[in-house]
Amino acid sequence: MTKEQMRECIDECLKCMEVCNNCYDACLQEEDVAMMRDCIRLDRMCADMCEFAARAMTQNSPYAAQICALCAQICEDCGNECAKHDMEHCQRCAEQCKRCAEVCRKMAA
Amino acid sequence: MTKEQMRECIDECLKCMEVCNNCYDACLQEEDVAMMRDCIRLDRMCADMCEFAARAMTQNSPYAAQICALCAQICEDCGNECAKHDMEHCQRCAEQCKRCAEVCRKMAA
Amino acid sequence: MTKEQMRECIDECLKCMEVCNNCYDACLQEEDVAMMRDCIRLDRMCADMCEFAARAMTQNSPYAAQICALCAQICEDCGNECAKHDMEHCQRCAEQCKRCAEVCRKMAA
Amino acid sequence: MTKEQMRECIDECLKCMEVCNNCYDACLQEEDVAMMRDCIRLDRMCADMCEFAARAMTQNSPYAAQICALCAQICEDCGNECAKHDMEHCQRCAEQCKRCAEVCRKMAA
Repeated sequence: MTKEQMRECIDECLKCMEVCNNCYDACLQEEDVAMMRDCIRLDRMCADMCEFAARAMTQNSPYAAQICALCAQICEDCGNECAKHDMEHCQRCAEQCKRCAEVCRKMAA
Repeated sequence: MTKEQMRECIDECLKCMEVCNNCYDACLQEEDVAMMRDCIRLDRMCADMCEFAARAMTQNSPYAAQICALCAQICEDCGNECAKHDMEHCQRCAEQCKRCAEVCRKMAA
Repeated sequence: MTKEQMRECIDECLKCMEVCNNCYDACLQEEDVAMMRDCIRLDRMCADMCEFAARAMTQNSPYAAQICALCAQICEDCGNECAKHDMEHCQRCAEQCKRCAEVCRKMAA
Repeated sequence: MTKEQMRECIDECLKCMEVCNNCYDACLQEEDVAMMRDCIRLDRMCADMCEFAARAMTQNSPYAAQICALCAQICEDCGNECAKHDMEHCQRCAEQCKRCAEVCRKMAA
């Protein structure tokens, strides 16, 4: 893994943390909040996981690759859930989660 | 507080988290690690506080201002400690901490 | 602040983190989830704040008192919101939040 | 996995978070802090990982088993490092890490 890959992975994780927390906030304001249950849960889980991955990478943790492997899976699942909903916040979250999952998978390899 | 101020504050907190964790890692590799005790502690504390502030702001927390007030103080203290050391990682951390403290103070106001 | 007070405060914060996350999970499963919006948000915020306070206290942070002051306020607010709902998970959360708020206030003094 | 296993795993993770952060604090106060570099790093990493695992379990996360698998490995490594040092804080941390690793492995299975 190169310095550039690490750099990109930290940036995508922090971006994903932000977009997931934005989506979490927006989902809780939706009129049909019952439809967003899974999205709310996954948004929190994914935001927290991305934050944790960024913390590990920035402190040069020897566990960064394994943490990113798990992060990739949670991002994938969160992205798939968000992709089911038409709202702009969900679509934006789905895109960022997929991008982050891809970069995390490379870090994990 | 405007959207631009919030945007800037999230960015500075995430940058500060990263730079503090980098400094923490570098301090632990210094030959004279005994001299870096306070820096190591404050780097971790400041990185964690900035991360927590970013988490609160991105989820639109009503406590963001109060969290940023506390973050400003910890950034200030961490910046002052880092400023005492000549190493590039400490100087860079001192600068980022001061910038973050300033922006957090505005958020808190 | 004595060692016993610190011990009690760590225990109450960790208990509160757990009970708030349990309530968050249970609220997201309620049929009338729309009624639980504020509770879900405050449960997450309070669980995260209590976790952060416990992290600070266990690492002997000089900011423990200030962090506990903020924690006390968030526990108070979360407890008041939970107290409005009759469900067992909310009532249990309201009680724990109030107990934690009280102990945190003493730590902060 | 039974409710009792989950209960035990949350308790061991929270205990381990506390003991690792105590050890981190004590290591930073050791006269020969250079000898404790790896211990300091692993203490922080392990404390943060255990905290994250407890957060996931208490919110009933579907990723709890995978998070605990990773937690078990970090606890194992932290316990092995701490076991090399005679200080009481390290010996206590080594014991708790081994206990937590074992319980996390069962959760992960």
